[in-house]
Amino acid sequence: MHEELRQAVCAANLQLHQHKLVIYSWGNVSGIDRRAGVVAIKPSGVAYEQLTPEAIVVLDLAGRVVAGDLRPSSDTPTHLELYRAFDAIGGICHTHSRHATMWAQACRAIPCLGTTHADYFYGEVPVTDPLAQSEIEGEYEKQTGRVIIRRFANLDPRRMPAVLVANHGPFTWGATPAQAVESSVILEEAAALALGTLTISPYQSAINQNLLDKHYLRKHGNDAYYGQKTIKQ
Amino acid sequence: MHEELRQAVCAANLQLHQHKLVIYSWGNVSGIDRRAGVVAIKPSGVAYEQLTPEAIVVLDLAGRVVAGDLRPSSDTPTHLELYRAFDAIGGICHTHSRHATMWAQACRAIPCLGTTHADYFYGEVPVTDPLAQSEIEGEYEKQTGRVIIRRFANLDPRRMPAVLVANHGPFTWGATPAQAVESSVILEEAAALALGTLTISPYQSAINQNLLDKHYLRKHGNDAYYGQKTIKQ
Amino acid sequence: MHEELRQAVCAANLQLHQHKLVIYSWGNVSGIDRRAGVVAIKPSGVAYEQLTPEAIVVLDLAGRVVAGDLRPSSDTPTHLELYRAFDAIGGICHTHSRHATMWAQACRAIPCLGTTHADYFYGEVPVTDPLAQSEIEGEYEKQTGRVIIRRFANLDPRRMPAVLVANHGPFTWGATPAQAVESSVILEEAAALALGTLTISPYQSAINQNLLDKHYLRKHGNDAYYGQKTIKQ
Amino acid sequence: MHEELRQAVCAANLQLHQHKLVIYSWGNVSGIDRRAGVVAIKPSGVAYEQLTPEAIVVLDLAGRVVAGDLRPSSDTPTHLELYRAFDAIGGICHTHSRHATMWAQACRAIPCLGTTHADYFYGEVPVTDPLAQSEIEGEYEKQTGRVIIRRFANLDPRRMPAVLVANHGPFTWGATPAQAVESSVILEEAAALALGTLTISPYQSAINQNLLDKHYLRKHGNDAYYGQKTIKQ
Repeated sequence: MHEELRQAVCAANLQLHQHKLVIYSWGNVSGIDRRAGVVAIKPSGVAYEQLTPEAIVVLDLAGRVVAGDLRPSSDTPTHLELYRAFDAIGGICHTHSRHATMWAQACRAIPCLGTTHADYFYGEVPVTDPLAQSEIEGEYEKQTGRVIIRRFANLDPRRMPAVLVANHGPFTWGATPAQAVESSVILEEAAALALGTLTISPYQSAINQNLLDKHYLRKHGNDAYYGQKTIKQ
Repeated sequence: MHEELRQAVCAANLQLHQHKLVIYSWGNVSGIDRRAGVVAIKPSGVAYEQLTPEAIVVLDLAGRVVAGDLRPSSDTPTHLELYRAFDAIGGICHTHSRHATMWAQACRAIPCLGTTHADYFYGEVPVTDPLAQSEIEGEYEKQTGRVIIRRFANLDPRRMPAVLVANHGPFTWGATPAQAVESSVILEEAAALALGTLTISPYQSAINQNLLDKHYLRKHGNDAYYGQKTIKQ
Repeated sequence: MHEELRQAVCAANLQLHQHKLVIYSWGNVSGIDRRAGVVAIKPSGVAYEQLTPEAIVVLDLAGRVVAGDLRPSSDTPTHLELYRAFDAIGGICHTHSRHATMWAQACRAIPCLGTTHADYFYGEVPVTDPLAQSEIEGEYEKQTGRVIIRRFANLDPRRMPAVLVANHGPFTWGATPAQAVESSVILEEAAALALGTLTISPYQSAINQNLLDKHYLRKHGNDAYYGQKTIKQ
Repeated sequence: MHEELRQAVCAANLQLHQHKLVIYSWGNVSGIDRRAGVVAIKPSGVAYEQLTPEAIVVLDLAGRVVAGDLRPSSDTPTHLELYRAFDAIGGICHTHSRHATMWAQACRAIPCLGTTHADYFYGEVPVTDPLAQSEIEGEYEKQTGRVIIRRFANLDPRRMPAVLVANHGPFTWGATPAQAVESSVILEEAAALALGTLTISPYQSAINQNLLDKHYLRKHGNDAYYGQKTIKQ
């Protein structure tokens, strides 16, 4: 049942572990098969060393388990909200990676201070509002998704595949589960670079729009010329 | 003699080494068998590479060696004080892990700045008073335990499984020796995150009580729903 | 075709990966055979794990592909500009290594604060001007080379084998591709040391000229006495 | 010829590499056989991967090579000065380890901010004066030794097995080459801890004398009780 999706999601979760973005069972990656209308996600609290495709839980978009014996990640309602709101994404990743989490805890967007950032994120990586008390005490994980979606009212999730949840940590996404993990790896690097840059030069401003356009579009625009074939999202 | 306890304590000490929280023979983990009334602890100054269950020293709660040929960790009197005062704990861990030690040396509690911290520690991780001269010159290691216990006069050690000894470093605990090590690993991560967060946002305040409650209790409360079964301490 | 050069360039690219200065397919190393008039460089967007000498692309100095089936690195025009302007160099390396990139993003030269730096770089590592809008929107990668060359109007690239491109990251070079990588490794170390030094002592000034002369020349001057034979560039 | 000494010095140099305190051929460890009147030291500019006991160079205290085909470390005159001045030491180690070098470049002594430091170093780790122009232009490496010795006019090198050479980096020592390396490992840790501590608490003062005495003497005093046997220097 949904073998290919489960394998892709399992492999992406293991990638997360190999890139040292998580310790213990922290973090989770999911993927969606939009035609089948199902989402596959890491089970809750299972160590990466023990993760197999069979352990991956499959749910429909209403959150009912379709396949798998384990309880899905406690962050599942956040993933489902994002899949429902963002048509273009095929995978989501959540970590507490060190430098991205520092920015999330500081409730500060990560400014675009260089081309490393601009190659992947079209502008500053946004931070959500803190959740209101009613959102925390209600369906907390679902509301975490809602607060992200509100923050993207005027943002294109294809051009900004990452967000910082205030007081919490990053969520990232991409066309596939593997790309969602890649977004997390690069977000962590951009977050570390930004912290060091501002330590050296506390009032450093974001790079100019034309440099941002050049770098983002050379990798992601219609006329992309990086890599061996045109990459489009 | 006390084979199971010694194996658990040996394994937990090796975990400490594998998580790279210690160099050389620094750090130590102990465990208690409350029915048998004995504590097992790492021997003093022995390299982790050479550690076996047989090398683990077993003592009664008065500090008399019951089994083992080696001298116990010089921090043993601290461990014994804590076991006598905190009924609920089954394992204790002491490290000089880098970021937690920075906070201990700064004589500053680690504020709860995000959900990573809140998932494990119910509020700020407290720091003890510095030891008085008479405490240092008397039974120093025992007094180190006493100063921790004084700091916990109004704190529940089950909800706060860590403390920073001022000018020194962290002690952590848990229901088992393995959980005590886990507390040390996560304390180190929370300490690193807090330092970075305050570098980005120097006046960042602690997260709201309702977010703290939500995260701590979703893992540790009566209605915990993280992981594959309810975890209670 | 140009087997030796391709092997040297492939090996140098792999060195870059082993020194952990790059993630994914970031970064690139090239080498030149001045007698044959050809430059060999990493293909664009290819993972280091899959890199072989056959995948290395060979071009003439006008940028026409002479050998190799893949598209060359998108930074190739920058490399070609530098080879045309700097006669003495035989290899070029570009990374987004963490600490060097922090300084580049801060648009700040790395001051020479100690002998580690002075052993390899004769003075502060310069930073370019930001590229003008017309340079970014025109032949961007070629103009990146031009802005470096302008910065070196009064600098000898043999004595200063590194530059920071503002808002971007470092380029380094050397007599061979392997030496270009070595320059990147040491630049990263010097960049990290400088950041920490200024954190401890924010107004620390550069070392004296005579200490700079002593260290640089003991390794690179006519009377060099470091190592097993005289090293001259 | 001096096989045992060469093996000890070779092994200590390899330890330096394994503890990741050096890159490339940076750093060097030496040892002395005071009865034979010879010093063994790493050859200059040789990679650690290629280091064997046969490559270790043996010299008399006047600096004449007694055994070995290679040129000794360019820092040899510094080592010889220290052996002549400090009777009690049997091994010397020089690195550019990251955090210790930051303090050396900042020309600042490392304050004793905690028990990790106090366990090994009896008080602040001193920094030398910068070398005068005449010292730099004359016998530079020998004068580096002299400036260290001047700094120790009122210090006991047995109780303070480390020094920072201003604008340069650390030298450490011990009863044996292996202990000299251990001093470097712990100095690096203490330097990192001190930097972080002062970032959290910029006006943090050194620990009290009685805590310093307690920790240093519990490991190194006449009544030492750490480890499996009394350790005395």
